[in-house]
Amino acid sequence: MPTTPDPSETDRIGTETELIQDYLAPLTNGDPGAFDLRDDAALLAPAPGQDLVFTSDPIIAGVHFLPTESPADIAWKALAVNVSDLAAKGARPISYVLNLAFPESPRRAWMAAFSAGLKAAQESFGCHLIGGDTDVTPGPLSIGVTIIGSLPSGSYVPRQGARKGDHVFVTGTIGDAALGLKIRLAQSGFDGLDAEQRDYLVGRYLRPSPRLALGDTLRAHASAALDVSDGLLKDLKRLAGPLGVLLSFDRVPLSDAAAAAIASDPSLFERILCGGDDYELLIAVPPALIGHFRRGAASAGVAVTDLGILEENIPVHVLASDGTPMDVSLFGYDHFSR
Amino acid sequence: MPTTPDPSETDRIGTETELIQDYLAPLTNGDPGAFDLRDDAALLAPAPGQDLVFTSDPIIAGVHFLPTESPADIAWKALAVNVSDLAAKGARPISYVLNLAFPESPRRAWMAAFSAGLKAAQESFGCHLIGGDTDVTPGPLSIGVTIIGSLPSGSYVPRQGARKGDHVFVTGTIGDAALGLKIRLAQSGFDGLDAEQRDYLVGRYLRPSPRLALGDTLRAHASAALDVSDGLLKDLKRLAGPLGVLLSFDRVPLSDAAAAAIASDPSLFERILCGGDDYELLIAVPPALIGHFRRGAASAGVAVTDLGILEENIPVHVLASDGTPMDVSLFGYDHFSR
Repeated sequence: MPTTPDPSETDRIGTETELIQDYLAPLTNGDPGAFDLRDDAALLAPAPGQDLVFTSDPIIAGVHFLPTESPADIAWKALAVNVSDLAAKGARPISYVLNLAFPESPRRAWMAAFSAGLKAAQESFGCHLIGGDTDVTPGPLSIGVTIIGSLPSGSYVPRQGARKGDHVFVTGTIGDAALGLKIRLAQSGFDGLDAEQRDYLVGRYLRPSPRLALGDTLRAHASAALDVSDGLLKDLKRLAGPLGVLLSFDRVPLSDAAAAAIASDPSLFERILCGGDDYELLIAVPPALIGHFRRGAASAGVAVTDLGILEENIPVHVLASDGTPMDVSLFGYDHFSR
Repeated sequence: MPTTPDPSETDRIGTETELIQDYLAPLTNGDPGAFDLRDDAALLAPAPGQDLVFTSDPIIAGVHFLPTESPADIAWKALAVNVSDLAAKGARPISYVLNLAFPESPRRAWMAAFSAGLKAAQESFGCHLIGGDTDVTPGPLSIGVTIIGSLPSGSYVPRQGARKGDHVFVTGTIGDAALGLKIRLAQSGFDGLDAEQRDYLVGRYLRPSPRLALGDTLRAHASAALDVSDGLLKDLKRLAGPLGVLLSFDRVPLSDAAAAAIASDPSLFERILCGGDDYELLIAVPPALIGHFRRGAASAGVAVTDLGILEENIPVHVLASDGTPMDVSLFGYDHFSR
């Protein structure tokens, strides 16, 4: 008896033109500078009084995401991780360039779901596609976004501007994504968590929400900021530069789900402090501006937590609830030193 | 007897910070908007009266270049293919974002040669590095450049602006790079070529020279332009859009080396017409502006050749010297339809 090939396996995109015109060109939202993705470049007329901000963070299957995730989630994350870098600078996203490298021509159903995920993400973040490139390569699926943002001239929030005495704030809650990844990898179900809590943690891993709402407040009141992508402690060290912070673990803001997980397994503290993918913001605020900063964050609807004060001649270190130093042997992820 | 490991194999870069600070940060030329590659984003203050142009064309080992090429040549090509797209729009390069994906942490000697190649290329093209990202991935070496160019507001030269009656010009000579690649792959030494001619063709493959010098003339006199990256005929079809051109093969400008190769093997005409990597420009010029265009090109020192007139109701097709149609079955390269 002849077998019928699975259409989902055989229904692959036939040409680069089909891929671009059917699935990607609609994401330009008709921006004339995108030329319907039919030109070799894209055009942007900068608004007067604005500086432009660029950042580029590709995500690669098996390195930055699980190849088994849904195409819509992968698309969301590819854009969100870049928008998060803009958010940390106080910039708002305008448009992005997309470089796709596929191990083989993608299935039409996969590509439709992927472009729908991009559409949802770009509508949420307020930007659109303006150009890029697609290739079939011998490697894993790679999704490279280079994003273009803007902010009022001279208002860029640098990574390295924190001063002695500044308070370090963090947005939202920390560690959810790292716990969500553990659930996703089926390494742990975390005793004591209900299904809703597990879904919450997985959702935080799959669909980061860049803190764009804090832009005005950051530009007005922050001396330095960056997003938490490689783990709280590693990124805190980056913000502190030559300075240090004494961080009480009790001050680290945890979601109800993360708090329940750590209550059942206290050894998770390391995962919470050092796991990546939070995409919250770490922000240094001079003491005189703390009131303004807190009010700005409140009116933006973003929860912020004061983690401590940047000081000279101390490292970034952590104390447990009982005041004893915590041993944190992992300090985030380095691709080059595994 | 213990064996000593080959230092060139073992002397690998240890951390991402070393890679970025030792080899890439010097390429920012001290641009304060690059933050010594210590921030998560880059900042650009656009010049008043200028539009910005973006293009992104990654090159991947085994797809776009031979992994055995020298790191300096790979670096040159990675930047040149992107600068060429800007040149076709009449833009000059300002700065670029670099995304490197390595199959393993690179050797220091390789990285030093690669960054020296980038330095030579960016000095030649007048731009510098402002940001990017580095990863170790399971795939082949991938070098992704997203380049930022500028031009006077409103002067962008589109791909799709050619009109009936426009003349199609091409810069330089066509086919050299495709023949150079054949030599590089040791598929052919081309009887009748001397060593200097072979070196010339290989050099055209390894070190494309984007036609930036033609920028002023393009913006002033061209109705449309693009660069020849996927083969003369495929790119000519793109420029023509719904129009067509009757192209006499005798009009296609050939270098002495390519002419000698085709004299010894006339079947190479297809490789010359359809091979990629020329990085010359195809330009549509309205009849009234041809004199201006030719004078502009001459004063820029760029040779241009009139290939024919864009007409309605004909395809892009080629006649041999004796006036018979040439069968050109290959129309360039499509990653998705091999």
